[in-house]
Amino acid sequence: MRNIVVQKFGGTSVADTDKIKNVAKAVIREKSLGNNVVVVVSAMGHTTDVLVKLANEITSNPSGREMDMLLSTGEGVTIALLAMALQAQGCNAVSMNAMQVGIITENVHSKARILDIKTDKIYQHLDNGEVVVIAGFQGVTNDFEITTLGRGGSDTSAVALAGALNAKRCDIYTDVNGVYTTDPRIVPHATRLKEISYEEMMELANGGANVLHPRAVETATIHKTPVRVRSTFKLEDAGTLILGVDEMELHRPVTGVALDMSQLRIVVCDVPDNPGVAAALFDSLANENISIDMIIQSYARKDLNTNDIAFTIDKADLNSALKVLDKLKSTINYSNVFVDDKIAKLSAVGAGMVGRPGIAAKMFRTLANLGINIKMISTSEIKISCLVDKDNADEAVSALHSVFGLDSSEIAEVKGDLPNI
Amino acid sequence: MRNIVVQKFGGTSVADTDKIKNVAKAVIREKSLGNNVVVVVSAMGHTTDVLVKLANEITSNPSGREMDMLLSTGEGVTIALLAMALQAQGCNAVSMNAMQVGIITENVHSKARILDIKTDKIYQHLDNGEVVVIAGFQGVTNDFEITTLGRGGSDTSAVALAGALNAKRCDIYTDVNGVYTTDPRIVPHATRLKEISYEEMMELANGGANVLHPRAVETATIHKTPVRVRSTFKLEDAGTLILGVDEMELHRPVTGVALDMSQLRIVVCDVPDNPGVAAALFDSLANENISIDMIIQSYARKDLNTNDIAFTIDKADLNSALKVLDKLKSTINYSNVFVDDKIAKLSAVGAGMVGRPGIAAKMFRTLANLGINIKMISTSEIKISCLVDKDNADEAVSALHSVFGLDSSEIAEVKGDLPNI
Repeated sequence: MRNIVVQKFGGTSVADTDKIKNVAKAVIREKSLGNNVVVVVSAMGHTTDVLVKLANEITSNPSGREMDMLLSTGEGVTIALLAMALQAQGCNAVSMNAMQVGIITENVHSKARILDIKTDKIYQHLDNGEVVVIAGFQGVTNDFEITTLGRGGSDTSAVALAGALNAKRCDIYTDVNGVYTTDPRIVPHATRLKEISYEEMMELANGGANVLHPRAVETATIHKTPVRVRSTFKLEDAGTLILGVDEMELHRPVTGVALDMSQLRIVVCDVPDNPGVAAALFDSLANENISIDMIIQSYARKDLNTNDIAFTIDKADLNSALKVLDKLKSTINYSNVFVDDKIAKLSAVGAGMVGRPGIAAKMFRTLANLGINIKMISTSEIKISCLVDKDNADEAVSALHSVFGLDSSEIAEVKGDLPNI
Repeated sequence: MRNIVVQKFGGTSVADTDKIKNVAKAVIREKSLGNNVVVVVSAMGHTTDVLVKLANEITSNPSGREMDMLLSTGEGVTIALLAMALQAQGCNAVSMNAMQVGIITENVHSKARILDIKTDKIYQHLDNGEVVVIAGFQGVTNDFEITTLGRGGSDTSAVALAGALNAKRCDIYTDVNGVYTTDPRIVPHATRLKEISYEEMMELANGGANVLHPRAVETATIHKTPVRVRSTFKLEDAGTLILGVDEMELHRPVTGVALDMSQLRIVVCDVPDNPGVAAALFDSLANENISIDMIIQSYARKDLNTNDIAFTIDKADLNSALKVLDKLKSTINYSNVFVDDKIAKLSAVGAGMVGRPGIAAKMFRTLANLGINIKMISTSEIKISCLVDKDNADEAVSALHSVFGLDSSEIAEVKGDLPNI
């Protein structure tokens, strides 16, 4: 065992040279605990925005290949500066871009998935006593083309590296100090979780808790890498540890309440009740790369042999979705389309709800008591989601947080306490 | 024969996105003449200065390896933007960094020399009808370490690529429209040369004519690649063609007069006339990487068995040189050191002076007639250099320009005329 810890620092953590020097301190602190350290960094602050602006000055439609070539320079700057900062503080360090490491991805631009990570050179440097500083967000194909990983890319790089290197932990340093039971901006007494399972984190992340990208959580699950989310600016805080449900100390029925305001609901009305209609509809939407979240097919008008099909999509996909529906009008013969963008999706998430009946009922009753109408419901093993009017969202989150016993704080017990893994 | 032309555009030619769009026009123009085009670009405008400033904010002494990693990102931005600009103007194009091409250098940072260039991928892209846009100034070792080539690096990249690809010409686009008989800021009627030989260009470049770096000229000589120096901003000008002396149309005894104000003279006084003293002195200076230009050992004090040894070095090397001399004081027993930084070096350069006696005499007489004292003289096959007081420099250059028949203009005959190669 090489005792490897992977640390990831995002753009705001490396926004200027003073912040990079502070990051170097956090790296040296981790190394001084006897660990071999691999650091993954993003581009500095607004670098990516500046590069995108330059590209847009050239053309409104840059090719994915050249965009990836352009954007990959951003992390090249950060890795060099952080390696310099470490060396200046007396710590041996070496920077590597994705091509040098061999972070092999699919041959797709702007949203490639990692296929393989070569570890031999990283191990060589670690065995030389060096900290290895690696460019996040970028990869390289087997044909030596530069790719980028898309949204959440640097988080994914870090977690994938931790998995490939068999690291004992991956620390995601960010501008929040952990994962909360719900958004602290809505519920001021939201409490920070000491631990959360991969599955719960995935449901929370998909539900709009923007702490860690779902792709990164998914990647962690594969190798069962413990991931800690912690603050770059409060190194004394232990943050939240994301790990397998088996290793968790505590199982509450509900771990967190998530709120997602990024979706809208489309209702396709009076669709004839023939086989294959839903397939035709959702196939066509999938072909346009439109992700569907919740789906309900009602049987309200069985006398007329028609259904209403309602589903939710990301607000950004509205125009594409309407185009698809317009094309399908003659094929599936619906009467009209109704768009509702005043919705909010509430989710109660908890690995502990498996085998504990009554959680859903408690949720519905709480909302009913507040006079809040539920527009759609969907459930998974560890999540119950309700669509409500967005004007009721804050009140609903607050009530659910309370009903599920999340108001009591357990931050005090973890502050300053670095779990022994 | 693939009819390849290599075009190189420096930092001022790609300083902003509008300029990059103009560069794309110049590339498309070359391609429309039926050529396969490979483009080499530098970092945009002041990018390198900005990156150096960031590094200096981190540490006053960044490692060469990390500095090269940092600086190499600059060209990464330019190649992507230029490829986008070409695509936007309907021209197929692809960007490649040095690692992707395989521009193999020595394992030395900040001033590596190119050892080998892989051509297979470039040929593949050219055979696909694509313009290949390559990052200048950078290379990669066989161990996959990123290197940079130092001063004049992008020029050297371009000329070396032209050689490796067996290109029919390498065009260096810059902010001047050719090579002049002398500096037009000193002699307003300096004339632009239609042609100049590699050897003459080398002597002029070393003598301070900052148009093309001597390393690039040297590289061109190896493969006998014709190099054209021309203006990015006056595409109608044919510029100056640098080629083998055998292919030149015209042989004047003197092709140009160069002025170099970047040196200073050091005189080491009363050095005992023992064997090995000069060797000890210049070995020690070489060990500190100090380049010596002119050397004179006088025998003025033969009665005392001592010499004065005078030599010229770059002003930037003064402190290092004085340290070396201080250390040698006890070994070589000189009396004192005299530094003269008020000097200028004048050089008359011409391949045609080989076998034509009297050029040196004419130069000395001209200076004598003006009452200008010559402090040192050095000569090569095709160059005569005199060190004079810097206050006399402009007057001397002007007089020599006139005496050697360079005042007559031949610009008119080449304007707009693209030589047929």
